[in-house]
Amino acid sequence: MMAENSLKKAQEARRAFLQMAPVTEKMRNEALLKMAKLLEEKKGRILVSNKKDVLRARRQGVSPAMLKRLELSEHKFGEIVHGVESVAAQVGQAGKVLSSIMLDEGLVLEQVSVPIGVVCAIFEARPDALCQISALAIKTGNCVILKGGSEARETNRAIFLAVRGALKVSGLPPGSVQLAESREAVNELLGMDSLIDLIIPRGGSAFVKYIMDNSKIPVLGHSEGVCHEYVDESADVEKAVKICVDAKTNYPAACNAMETLLVHEKIAEKFLPAFAKALGGKAELRADPQSLAILAKNNFRAKKAIAGDFGREFSDLVLSVKIVKSCDEAISHINRFGSKHTDGIITQSAQDAEKFLAGVDSAGVYWNASTRFADGYRYGKGAEVGISTGKLHCRGPGGAEALLTYKYILRGDGHVVSDYTGDGAKKFLHRKLLPKTYGSPTQ
Amino acid sequence: MMAENSLKKAQEARRAFLQMAPVTEKMRNEALLKMAKLLEEKKGRILVSNKKDVLRARRQGVSPAMLKRLELSEHKFGEIVHGVESVAAQVGQAGKVLSSIMLDEGLVLEQVSVPIGVVCAIFEARPDALCQISALAIKTGNCVILKGGSEARETNRAIFLAVRGALKVSGLPPGSVQLAESREAVNELLGMDSLIDLIIPRGGSAFVKYIMDNSKIPVLGHSEGVCHEYVDESADVEKAVKICVDAKTNYPAACNAMETLLVHEKIAEKFLPAFAKALGGKAELRADPQSLAILAKNNFRAKKAIAGDFGREFSDLVLSVKIVKSCDEAISHINRFGSKHTDGIITQSAQDAEKFLAGVDSAGVYWNASTRFADGYRYGKGAEVGISTGKLHCRGPGGAEALLTYKYILRGDGHVVSDYTGDGAKKFLHRKLLPKTYGSPTQ
Repeated sequence: MMAENSLKKAQEARRAFLQMAPVTEKMRNEALLKMAKLLEEKKGRILVSNKKDVLRARRQGVSPAMLKRLELSEHKFGEIVHGVESVAAQVGQAGKVLSSIMLDEGLVLEQVSVPIGVVCAIFEARPDALCQISALAIKTGNCVILKGGSEARETNRAIFLAVRGALKVSGLPPGSVQLAESREAVNELLGMDSLIDLIIPRGGSAFVKYIMDNSKIPVLGHSEGVCHEYVDESADVEKAVKICVDAKTNYPAACNAMETLLVHEKIAEKFLPAFAKALGGKAELRADPQSLAILAKNNFRAKKAIAGDFGREFSDLVLSVKIVKSCDEAISHINRFGSKHTDGIITQSAQDAEKFLAGVDSAGVYWNASTRFADGYRYGKGAEVGISTGKLHCRGPGGAEALLTYKYILRGDGHVVSDYTGDGAKKFLHRKLLPKTYGSPTQ
Repeated sequence: MMAENSLKKAQEARRAFLQMAPVTEKMRNEALLKMAKLLEEKKGRILVSNKKDVLRARRQGVSPAMLKRLELSEHKFGEIVHGVESVAAQVGQAGKVLSSIMLDEGLVLEQVSVPIGVVCAIFEARPDALCQISALAIKTGNCVILKGGSEARETNRAIFLAVRGALKVSGLPPGSVQLAESREAVNELLGMDSLIDLIIPRGGSAFVKYIMDNSKIPVLGHSEGVCHEYVDESADVEKAVKICVDAKTNYPAACNAMETLLVHEKIAEKFLPAFAKALGGKAELRADPQSLAILAKNNFRAKKAIAGDFGREFSDLVLSVKIVKSCDEAISHINRFGSKHTDGIITQSAQDAEKFLAGVDSAGVYWNASTRFADGYRYGKGAEVGISTGKLHCRGPGGAEALLTYKYILRGDGHVVSDYTGDGAKKFLHRKLLPKTYGSPTQ
């Protein structure tokens, strides 16, 4: 039964996508504004549904962190509605001519941004994620299958009704947003590579890795966030302490929190005690022998690191510490043990900084800033689809642009290739009418 | 033995990639010019090696088409060398700032184009492909593992020596280009997802599909090219005939050749006999009942199409023909039976054309032009890595840009996220310094 159900939902989404071509940006923005209005109108009902979910979740003993993400306050609800309105207000990026080239007289090739198609978003019990992803999908002209955490079932249903209502009155195919509910649906959806173009999983490492390993559909996301800060020989100690404390303690469960601290041997005696003092015992240090000795000498407690502590995502107030002999060693360590998420150097040397920024093969490379900045909102993208540690399509935090691809449109007047081949072949003009996407946009 | 061998090659390529950061665009261009020079110097030896390969291949009874691709004439060799020089002459796209945004005073985020990393190219016995892909990889700062068809073994080795020589004298890591030779190596390489970032297979549908189905590494390419031309009600019959003959007969084995012809019922009586006459029996028609009747009435021979003839890549002088009632039906047929490669409409109606261009979900959508234009060179990209029917990263014919991704570089001065959260939080400025890649580049 369930198998047929989720297949039908995916087929409906696919069909809706093929009906999406005549839908204009204006209609999509109207749908978003209507969605915000309907959410506001149905607020009472949504909050009641949410209360039911919270009560049930509490009875089932879910973690306080998850309860916090599940629970909708009046204030949080207002932020969600405002978020949908601000997605509507953004400049749309779908349907733009990215490049244009005249191949020959009367034969013009345009590269135009278009929605990817059918996106499947799988996430935890977070009503705000459901709204944000729906809004971004509608904005970009994609169709989306939403699979939210079952703990938020009642809330998801109530919100989904508002979304569907908005689609209907705005002339968008109502099937363009689908809600999947069962656990079984996840495995079924993973196999539908002819219907689904992209999977966006949001959740724990093991969950995301499972999805990456069990689907042929491309996945946008990250299974691990093993971020490093490297305190270079010439670092400003005060700044280094401030950045490292922030990177570890601001939100230790986040994927962009620091997991490993690398310290140049020439600054370690000065930096490590200052850092340990600023931490004030808030985080457990797992130190290599050299850093352990320095900490002990200054009366700071630390554990001895084991090999597995490097390259490990603690997701907690724990970090591994290692002394390195050079910036090169730090770069090598990160490229070997990191997860290509976000890694930073703290230094006053522009030379070392640029070496690090070029040499570290990660989605984000930072100079004198906390790894915690790796986030779609902080990057100015308005909303975030997810953070990708893959290297293709989307790297790092992705906003609306992560839901877009392009197609080539060629307009001619009876042009044939045989005129451009063989003896007396016509020559192509290849006259650029608009700059290429890749390459400097200012050329 | 072989397993260790290809693993070692992949590890060397990975190591070379991590040594690539200090290599400048200038050094890469010098390596390309040196490669062209060494190819010219070693021409005699390369052509002798090629003769050996051709003799052996002929003894083994390989197809004339493959022999033609394998054989190097003086002229073809000259074109290869010129191709390498022209890649060197192109404006480089790696290391460009694609977008830039000031998050706050002193905190600037840049999105910079960078090479993907280690690319594995698997192709048939085509010495020109080996040179072209090596050249594009060197140009963009990628490392590449080349696995060419075994029929070209001697030629590949001789060319590879020239490539390696060029890398050495230009200061590039010699390990950045690797040659894999054994059939076993292919399966081994497919499993190395921690060392290889992208696979580019070039060859028959079954081969490419095998690779897509047997690797977790992203694949750039296409397993099928089922291209359509649709002759609309208001088509100019003369243009339509010219385009359809070209699309089918210019190079029937190519992935961008037309496999299915759709004809509006109101123009079929006029168009089909004219098309069949122009074809002059050069291609076999597999017609649906309605088109079969029209052809028969006009004394043209055709076979009755079976269901499997729609959505089939004949790769030969064969095509299926079907009458449709409307532009909408043509769009639906293509979205159902096509392979998202390249599909065209032939019409004098701008309204139908735009409906088709928006509604067909393919990498290339054409108006009044032959599908045979789908090609990196014809698109003005200089060289082609492959043609992708996937929707992410690269769509359609990909040039150097298909070997690039980006990273985010954040430069700060001790900035921490805790200053931007909670009570009295600082506000982000989010001041754009350069336009975004996606979205209109002219804004």
